[in-house]
Amino acid sequence: MTDAVLGIDFGGTKIAVGVAAPTGELLASTRLDTDAGSGAAQAVERALRAGRELAPNPAAVGVCSPGIVLPDRILLAPNVPGWGDLRLAELVTAEFGAVPVAVGTDAKAAGLAEYTWGVLGEADPAVYLSLGTGLAAAILIGGRVLGGANGAAGEFGYNVRDRSAPDAFASGAAPLEEAVGGIGLGRRATSLFGVPTSAAQLFALAQTDSRASALVDDALDELAVHVANLAIAVDPELMAVGGGFLGAADFVLPALRRRLAQAVPFPPKVVPAHFGADASLRGALALALQALGAQPRA
Amino acid sequence: MTDAVLGIDFGGTKIAVGVAAPTGELLASTRLDTDAGSGAAQAVERALRAGRELAPNPAAVGVCSPGIVLPDRILLAPNVPGWGDLRLAELVTAEFGAVPVAVGTDAKAAGLAEYTWGVLGEADPAVYLSLGTGLAAAILIGGRVLGGANGAAGEFGYNVRDRSAPDAFASGAAPLEEAVGGIGLGRRATSLFGVPTSAAQLFALAQTDSRASALVDDALDELAVHVANLAIAVDPELMAVGGGFLGAADFVLPALRRRLAQAVPFPPKVVPAHFGADASLRGALALALQALGAQPRA
Repeated sequence: MTDAVLGIDFGGTKIAVGVAAPTGELLASTRLDTDAGSGAAQAVERALRAGRELAPNPAAVGVCSPGIVLPDRILLAPNVPGWGDLRLAELVTAEFGAVPVAVGTDAKAAGLAEYTWGVLGEADPAVYLSLGTGLAAAILIGGRVLGGANGAAGEFGYNVRDRSAPDAFASGAAPLEEAVGGIGLGRRATSLFGVPTSAAQLFALAQTDSRASALVDDALDELAVHVANLAIAVDPELMAVGGGFLGAADFVLPALRRRLAQAVPFPPKVVPAHFGADASLRGALALALQALGAQPRA
Repeated sequence: MTDAVLGIDFGGTKIAVGVAAPTGELLASTRLDTDAGSGAAQAVERALRAGRELAPNPAAVGVCSPGIVLPDRILLAPNVPGWGDLRLAELVTAEFGAVPVAVGTDAKAAGLAEYTWGVLGEADPAVYLSLGTGLAAAILIGGRVLGGANGAAGEFGYNVRDRSAPDAFASGAAPLEEAVGGIGLGRRATSLFGVPTSAAQLFALAQTDSRASALVDDALDELAVHVANLAIAVDPELMAVGGGFLGAADFVLPALRRRLAQAVPFPPKVVPAHFGADASLRGALALALQALGAQPRA
């Protein structure tokens, strides 16, 4: 298995570790708890150890995480103590020696995986929407993920939603994400029902409860307006929806399609992503294969 | 002058015609009234005749116009009878023979000119904002203008501004442009003062009149929110502002910079464009040189 590559996807609650063949075929994978409260260092250490158990001598390693993942630090990092200071590339090299290492943002990596093995192949431009706890997009131009000048392209969870509201990136907020991302939806549902309610529970309730479905409709339409304006900017051929909201595809896809059909001069097709919970892990593996110089397209 | 190229920029009220050396140096230019009420055919005929007077045998011809300019028709065309059916490439070839011909959208051409000879050079990504009668952006990735799947990338005048408003592209509207573009501003100023007032007059009044400055502030802040969300999507290094609003740069640039500083994780620099009223003509010339296979970068 010397030509296999290792991928690690760090999330706020779970870490996924996997090994793939040069074709991209997933050979083995495992999941760990992040245990975010115990800090970043222990999470990375356990992930690397799990990786070594799956692939003692990987040909390349790809790692992704929320935030702008640079080799020696992570900007816009998740709220895990020490996460921003992680020198991920160095830690991987210390564990596995001088193999090619690639690091990246999870949503962008997932978009690359969808382009490489999933539903976005050949579409140009293509947009992958990661809709869940966080909101982010990967914009693919000619099959390459648009990084932007600072690696922050597509981070539309920071979008301004209300001109009169004081919350903004500069005051530590991610306005759109906090309103219509998974945590925001859960907070609004909790406030509506007076008992702790997650976004997934809200979507389930919305099948039968009119107050829940009104909240879902309102939030998804607001999200859809921002997706429509993104589509106006990029004029994509295809948009793929991934992330936790895909569990409520019956609500999410029609809401997006409705707004796109109204607002966008050339409305793109909107399809469910191919990969589900392991989208970012697939992305980490795609990054590893890209670092290897392989053509990961199967 | 056999290596000179010809550029024609069709606008709703004026047509600019110019000849440039292979270096991009403007050798001669002239302006005609579009006389839109008399239809598209006569406007193109007069423009081609003026072009032939300036450059009897151009090495290549570049033509731009508002809308999505395809060789055999124009989509999202301006409201000029017959404009959508124009076969611009064919008409140019009928006039000048089998020289290379390039057609494109005016704002995208202007962005290419700014990248080639103006203030955007080397910035990646770079965004050119055409703010005036119309609102549009040219997004440059690696020095190439992002066209999108249908040539409609960057047409943010169509952006949804208000979730509850029924106006949208599908109902024939360009919501953001109609609210905060030049014509929308003029309409709002006319309604405010009870006498016909143009956007330019509004900006002039806003220097001293508090009602005028309140309207300007409100409209520019709404525009700035959409520019900020575009910047979040693209993460540009630099944004250049061109178009008629540049005449009110003292209002426009600070309004954009203020929102970008608040809302965008990595706020790009915002600078005035190098080219003014002739930006799209320069763009048509850049298109011609590109069609010639020349490296128009001076």
